[in-house]
Amino acid sequence: MLFFVGLGLYDERDISVKGLEIVRCADAVYAEFYTSRLMGTSIERLEQLYGREIRMLSRSEIEGEPEWLEHARDRNVALLVGGDPMISTTHLDLRLRAIEMGIDTRVIHGSNIASAVPGITGLQNYRFGRSATVPFPHIVRGKRIVSSTPYNAVKDNLRRDLHTLLYLDIQDERFMCINEAAALLIEVANGSGDEDFASNLAVGIARAGSEDMCVRAGTLLELKTYSFGPPLHVMVIPGRLHFMEAKALRMLAGAPEELLSGYEL
Amino acid sequence: MLFFVGLGLYDERDISVKGLEIVRCADAVYAEFYTSRLMGTSIERLEQLYGREIRMLSRSEIEGEPEWLEHARDRNVALLVGGDPMISTTHLDLRLRAIEMGIDTRVIHGSNIASAVPGITGLQNYRFGRSATVPFPHIVRGKRIVSSTPYNAVKDNLRRDLHTLLYLDIQDERFMCINEAAALLIEVANGSGDEDFASNLAVGIARAGSEDMCVRAGTLLELKTYSFGPPLHVMVIPGRLHFMEAKALRMLAGAPEELLSGYEL
Repeated sequence: MLFFVGLGLYDERDISVKGLEIVRCADAVYAEFYTSRLMGTSIERLEQLYGREIRMLSRSEIEGEPEWLEHARDRNVALLVGGDPMISTTHLDLRLRAIEMGIDTRVIHGSNIASAVPGITGLQNYRFGRSATVPFPHIVRGKRIVSSTPYNAVKDNLRRDLHTLLYLDIQDERFMCINEAAALLIEVANGSGDEDFASNLAVGIARAGSEDMCVRAGTLLELKTYSFGPPLHVMVIPGRLHFMEAKALRMLAGAPEELLSGYEL
Repeated sequence: MLFFVGLGLYDERDISVKGLEIVRCADAVYAEFYTSRLMGTSIERLEQLYGREIRMLSRSEIEGEPEWLEHARDRNVALLVGGDPMISTTHLDLRLRAIEMGIDTRVIHGSNIASAVPGITGLQNYRFGRSATVPFPHIVRGKRIVSSTPYNAVKDNLRRDLHTLLYLDIQDERFMCINEAAALLIEVANGSGDEDFASNLAVGIARAGSEDMCVRAGTLLELKTYSFGPPLHVMVIPGRLHFMEAKALRMLAGAPEELLSGYEL
């Protein structure tokens, strides 16, 4: 049996009791942290709390020929992943390959940034449209290319009065911060002649699930320079707000009164 | 301090280790299960695992004048809720009132149906549009009214190639099942002259997070009569499918080959 065990939002104690029991009883414990990071902990602290030796798997050991998977044919193998498992295509692909090998699989769910954001900001779950990722600019033939995909996703949701959750790019040990994401969105908007976009309401969230989480609402232009501290960062661009959502952004995210007044539904 | 502790998806062992520690150390432990049910357990089993007496709160004790909240002024009070806290407006309202009373609040996140569904079905997280709820029909002046809101949400998402997660109504001890939800959607579609809607691909999920979870893909017409067993039920109407999503629905949800062929992007 192969168990995908979600470690939850932030540190080694965000795993569920069910997940911890499975890890403690498993014949072998592996982990992969390249699709999703667990920022508030280390492999040593995981090993200490869980009382198990954990073998870290590289990308090629997950996506290539995973020899370790053979052990799951007749033993219980736990694979630890950040957040809620199977959000990433990599996990889904691995699960389907395991099933094709005749291995039973089971998913132990964990807390996750997508479902935590409504609780953190007070923005209501059912009012979010599709999410998007703000990628780092890339260079093609000496020219810097900034993706317009996240800007378009936000505009599409705004037209329908929906909020947008934006994930910020991670490349190896490089984490995009809210400042850079706000700057990139404004750059794309200005390039489309949409100069008003910079004065849109936005909410930045740093280190969700930790004791020193930082949540701040302001215009995109303000978030471009606000100091959020260390990663991980995500951002929300809200559509129009219900009364309760506006009140929550004021009380939980320090949104300025004058900015909110134009947003209420 | 008032802690909102999310109990996670299904039973008493879906709480996080962090949440369990807070419950065990709290000066008082309360629970409310009218906004979100924890189907796979009972208050007795929660008390046994957590080693604490738990006082159940009624709707009026949450939404009216919550006397128990006074205790959180100078003691640690834990409020247990199903899933991930703060998804419901009721929790948000309570949290804002606590803050206005000068009480510190903290949210301990849990696993949640919204983030679990991609893992259960293989449908990718970022391809979901806004979600909706299928409500029970209600009677106005002797006439039966079926809401067209969920149908419209699905159509809006389908036009944009996005998936729709549909929550099914709960009223007191009455849980809408997938069969009824499929029938209601087909009724609204037929009423709008959209007879093809019944042959749309749909995925039913019963008892998410439990060991006897049931996941089944088919046409809406097929789901109208498929036997999913006890609640809770949710449903997904997928938009067009990536190759990997189609493969996942075949392997994880028994989707018939001929139905999938028209859906691949």
